[in-house]
Amino acid sequence: MTTTDIHDLALRSIRVLIADLVQQFNGGHPGGAMDMAAIGIALWKYTLQFSVNDPDYFNRDRFVLSNGHTCLFQYVFQHLVGYKHMTMDMLKTYHSTDPNSFCPGHPEIEIPGIEITTGALGQGITNAVGLAIAAKNLGATYNKEDFPVVSNHTFCMVGDACLQEGVTLEAISLAGHLGLNNLTVMYDNNQITCDGSVDLTNTEDINAKFNACNWDVIEVFNGSEDIDAIVAALAKSKTNKKPTLVNIHTRIGIGSNVEGQAAAHGAAFGQAEVDRLHQINDFPVEQKYHIPQPVYDFFSDIPAKGDAIKAQWEELLHNYTQKYPREGEELLRRIKGELPDNWESLIPETLPESATASRKASGLVFNPVAKEVNSFIVGTADLSPSVNMMWDKKSDFQNPNIQTACGQNGSYKGRYIHYGIREHAMAAISNGIAAYSKGTFIPVTSTFFMFYLYAAPAVRYGALSELQVIHVATHDSIGTGEDGPTHQPIALAALYRSMPNLLYIRPADNEEVAGAWKIAINAKNKVSILSLSRQTLTQYPQYSKRNEVAKGAYIFKDIENPQISIIGVGPEMKFAFDAAQKLNEQGIRTRLISFPCQTLFEKQSLEYKRKILQRGRIPTVVVEAYAPNGWERYATAGISMHSFGKSLPGAACYDFFGFNGDVIADEVKAYFKAVQEQPELMWEFQDLNTKGE
Amino acid sequence: MTTTDIHDLALRSIRVLIADLVQQFNGGHPGGAMDMAAIGIALWKYTLQFSVNDPDYFNRDRFVLSNGHTCLFQYVFQHLVGYKHMTMDMLKTYHSTDPNSFCPGHPEIEIPGIEITTGALGQGITNAVGLAIAAKNLGATYNKEDFPVVSNHTFCMVGDACLQEGVTLEAISLAGHLGLNNLTVMYDNNQITCDGSVDLTNTEDINAKFNACNWDVIEVFNGSEDIDAIVAALAKSKTNKKPTLVNIHTRIGIGSNVEGQAAAHGAAFGQAEVDRLHQINDFPVEQKYHIPQPVYDFFSDIPAKGDAIKAQWEELLHNYTQKYPREGEELLRRIKGELPDNWESLIPETLPESATASRKASGLVFNPVAKEVNSFIVGTADLSPSVNMMWDKKSDFQNPNIQTACGQNGSYKGRYIHYGIREHAMAAISNGIAAYSKGTFIPVTSTFFMFYLYAAPAVRYGALSELQVIHVATHDSIGTGEDGPTHQPIALAALYRSMPNLLYIRPADNEEVAGAWKIAINAKNKVSILSLSRQTLTQYPQYSKRNEVAKGAYIFKDIENPQISIIGVGPEMKFAFDAAQKLNEQGIRTRLISFPCQTLFEKQSLEYKRKILQRGRIPTVVVEAYAPNGWERYATAGISMHSFGKSLPGAACYDFFGFNGDVIADEVKAYFKAVQEQPELMWEFQDLNTKGE
Repeated sequence: MTTTDIHDLALRSIRVLIADLVQQFNGGHPGGAMDMAAIGIALWKYTLQFSVNDPDYFNRDRFVLSNGHTCLFQYVFQHLVGYKHMTMDMLKTYHSTDPNSFCPGHPEIEIPGIEITTGALGQGITNAVGLAIAAKNLGATYNKEDFPVVSNHTFCMVGDACLQEGVTLEAISLAGHLGLNNLTVMYDNNQITCDGSVDLTNTEDINAKFNACNWDVIEVFNGSEDIDAIVAALAKSKTNKKPTLVNIHTRIGIGSNVEGQAAAHGAAFGQAEVDRLHQINDFPVEQKYHIPQPVYDFFSDIPAKGDAIKAQWEELLHNYTQKYPREGEELLRRIKGELPDNWESLIPETLPESATASRKASGLVFNPVAKEVNSFIVGTADLSPSVNMMWDKKSDFQNPNIQTACGQNGSYKGRYIHYGIREHAMAAISNGIAAYSKGTFIPVTSTFFMFYLYAAPAVRYGALSELQVIHVATHDSIGTGEDGPTHQPIALAALYRSMPNLLYIRPADNEEVAGAWKIAINAKNKVSILSLSRQTLTQYPQYSKRNEVAKGAYIFKDIENPQISIIGVGPEMKFAFDAAQKLNEQGIRTRLISFPCQTLFEKQSLEYKRKILQRGRIPTVVVEAYAPNGWERYATAGISMHSFGKSLPGAACYDFFGFNGDVIADEVKAYFKAVQEQPELMWEFQDLNTKGE
Repeated sequence: MTTTDIHDLALRSIRVLIADLVQQFNGGHPGGAMDMAAIGIALWKYTLQFSVNDPDYFNRDRFVLSNGHTCLFQYVFQHLVGYKHMTMDMLKTYHSTDPNSFCPGHPEIEIPGIEITTGALGQGITNAVGLAIAAKNLGATYNKEDFPVVSNHTFCMVGDACLQEGVTLEAISLAGHLGLNNLTVMYDNNQITCDGSVDLTNTEDINAKFNACNWDVIEVFNGSEDIDAIVAALAKSKTNKKPTLVNIHTRIGIGSNVEGQAAAHGAAFGQAEVDRLHQINDFPVEQKYHIPQPVYDFFSDIPAKGDAIKAQWEELLHNYTQKYPREGEELLRRIKGELPDNWESLIPETLPESATASRKASGLVFNPVAKEVNSFIVGTADLSPSVNMMWDKKSDFQNPNIQTACGQNGSYKGRYIHYGIREHAMAAISNGIAAYSKGTFIPVTSTFFMFYLYAAPAVRYGALSELQVIHVATHDSIGTGEDGPTHQPIALAALYRSMPNLLYIRPADNEEVAGAWKIAINAKNKVSILSLSRQTLTQYPQYSKRNEVAKGAYIFKDIENPQISIIGVGPEMKFAFDAAQKLNEQGIRTRLISFPCQTLFEKQSLEYKRKILQRGRIPTVVVEAYAPNGWERYATAGISMHSFGKSLPGAACYDFFGFNGDVIADEVKAYFKAVQEQPELMWEFQDLNTKGE
């Protein structure tokens, strides 16, 4: 067979197979997967450097399917190139009730060969920017002349929809600024989305937009057929000085009776039409789920090629470690996903006992670690002066090839990223950095807690994908002050406390900040959010314990035979502390609990939980300047927020809403008396504070 | 005084006043407000058509300060042009502890003359797109030859930061597509953000980017001084065929010793430097908070001009209502913010009793209303085929001046908006439409519930600004099925249930869908989210009651002397219903509660709440396929989700996680027996289901 013939046969058989697989359970997304078949051949047969037999081979090219609903595209090519898990039977589990399927409706990171979970539009392409940053940083850190030990390229497939999402547009702008020429985005330009033709809602000049953002653009006009042109474009993209958009014009649902229409996007074609597709593509109607042997043969060299690529790299790495033992040792450790043994010793054993903002304490705790340990790549969404994440002599991650007016000090070796005012992209890029190879990097982001609502979809994706990312959320609760309700997060904690695989930790003072950082750095495969104050916080060196943070909650200040408990949370501990003290002075025996993390507390033994909470025995009042939702599990009453806050200086704002030891003491006392008379009141969670609402 | 002289005096006195106001309490954002002084003069003195004496005059030009941290810019000009509330004493409340200040840290909609609350970057410019859409739609609907009753222009101020946010980039793309030539965005291009020079993180060609997005661009190079050039650019922008970016180059903190630096952005200059600013601007050091009389005189014509503008428009409107009584009546009603009296009668009194997806029921309920009532402007983030929001013969909101390949059917009169895959912009634009004039529009958005996490910051802004916006969130919980965990919202309900001024309503069947829509349409000044199923739902015409939804929860199926209650929520009612039935058959007297809205339930009387919940008397199990957080207030145990879900067909997915009447009945029975033996177990919220987690 000529190359033309085998390409043609492969294209036809792939398209028909996809139609069959979607028809099987009458559901799924056939159109895009079909129109991208030529891209798939260009990619997996001719371009990607990877290893079928070791999908995690470190220096592999990364491929991200940002238009994740076309997942059959990736699954079918995994099958063709010989990934062992992706048998034809496995392909047939797509949309089935098999809970062990490797063919979910969107690609998931748990599947061999899938770099990162994608699906919600815009996440994948932004993750790809992170993968490219990771490779640039590693290359700049470890590569030596003749030893390009980290040299992989990142390829990302996007559709029309991804390119409309804000997070994508943030990522494009940043990737262009950073000059990530190890990134190629392949645009499946079929001009169709669910609603119909793209020009119902988008008539921009996409090439000009990418050019304006410092990207190169290569156009391929017959992208559903012209494999050679795609191969050439991908090869060219690897030599460009900028990131490259390959704008590939395709025809959705190619060959079907809904070709070029939205109807091809997200539904089976119907059996009659699938039969017709078999016929026009020269396959018998009854021959379903069929790939002709010559097509298998065509792809059969891929596993051995992958073995060779990997072996060659391993030899390179071996020689590198011989010649550069120090760098080699570090790189090998990072490849294994490990931190240096001494990292915990870099955290100061003692911290100031004078009033300190927890955002400041966070810097005192973490910056010495970040400075020494290359695994940390830290960034901020334009709040460097506010979040305290800059370590001494930090160097920026920047494109060394451009001169900027600001006289930047940076290179790809830098580990501090100015993400710009792009919170969503910051979090999604960090997911990509973390996904480069688990544990090689621990990305850290930072901005005000409020803006983690902008970033929330990506924070969620990190947790869903079991990636270790640490988000440093400063200016939490209403203590942020004058910025007002626009900047005061009231409902966000409830979101993050409800999110699986995520630790939302609100330390009360410096010691708890140290404890929180240790937990976050040790939390492999988890997302952590450290929730920190703008304002200075009273320190409680007598009571707070960094190692107790890991239990989620602990007794902060005990008293014999307590009659009531007060839970102090994070920066609001002071009000809880003052109120408890006052109540004790008044003869109401009040126990004080610190409760930095609900999720960690849930993991404790029943015995421990009962010791802390004494549910049903004594009333418990939580003091936190957030919506109370969720605290009902632990407390019988709350001093909390029921409005969006107010623009006032921090202390005045707290006071306005009744966060004041004296006011709280009075409210808790009244509640205590009421409960003494009517113990059944404890059954009904009481919102105690009414001031300012 | 010559115009040049008075301009110069005004510029100097405004800048010094801003420096004084920030110095007073040693906090705030002086730099941008100062560098924009010339823009302010161009705008308020020479351009804006508005009425100081009636800030809500309907046909006023709208001005939005998207870079809301520069709020002193707006407050100071409000003072200069004579808004009565904005005295010099009021200006001096900026950053004070006065809770009645009209000068919060970011502009808030409650203040006369402020169109919408801004501050979180990107929101304002996107709101402005909504304001422009509202004006276009009203104009196309009501204007007649010689009767331009709606003819206002929208001006929006943005900074470097706003232009990096994804939501902005979504909005720019859509505004260009829609050809909103009634929108002028003024870019305070000072090339400084918190971290320093913008080119630390952004080196794109912004003019080319806007051009690529179908915008006109006008550049003003000496924008901190050249008032004439700004006036000319603004005037030109009103005649353009596209939306216009006026790229105004400015110098942040102009005149100060930190001019052009990030240090000018968000902190007071220090008293010594403020003194020096007084001196170089020719004001005595001791003369603080001072505007020279000639400057007041210069702006003194503005109130009368505004009175005349308003009077002229009122005459036009009067004549219009005479000549076009039908349109006039409708327009007057909408100006008053009212719906036609008959709207409720447009909701079908009976709905199908056969199994129906609640997303489908939602269309059956609402589309007849949307079709008839012009106040509704409905859109979707590219999910028209899935969300069922298209009424019979709906017409799209489109730019009538462009021909698109898709042969669109639309004009500015259309009330169906294809927002594209731009969820965040959709919600923020809807806030802008709602803010045009309260009640004139009720914007409705739609997408999958999962993607309201993308839109969350704007959903929150709507609630914060007390705007009536209705979000139709389909494909909720894990019933969405094959799309998998990427599309299954587990933690989102906790966010929205915690959010002040927002109703998150999950109807269980068609009747409850009707009830939910009535509540949402009646909820003036509130945001509502209707949470709907992809999958068909069993109907309970015997039990469900549309008018009970307003109570938040009600007894769905009662039994005498109940021993236990089960709460069924939304699409998971079926599992609760089946389990309750089974338990009753087994002799455990089980009461069934429907609980569509926690926030509405909280507003009920204590007596009603006790009747429904019987807290402390009998155990109560909530059945909902979300994280349980927050249900602890109402239930003692839960069948809920503790992971992100799974890609399986909807029914199989529910089953996988134990959402199955039989399984639940067994779990509840075991729990019931345990509680009988150990009633104190009711104190500790029990997570009953363990399947699949």
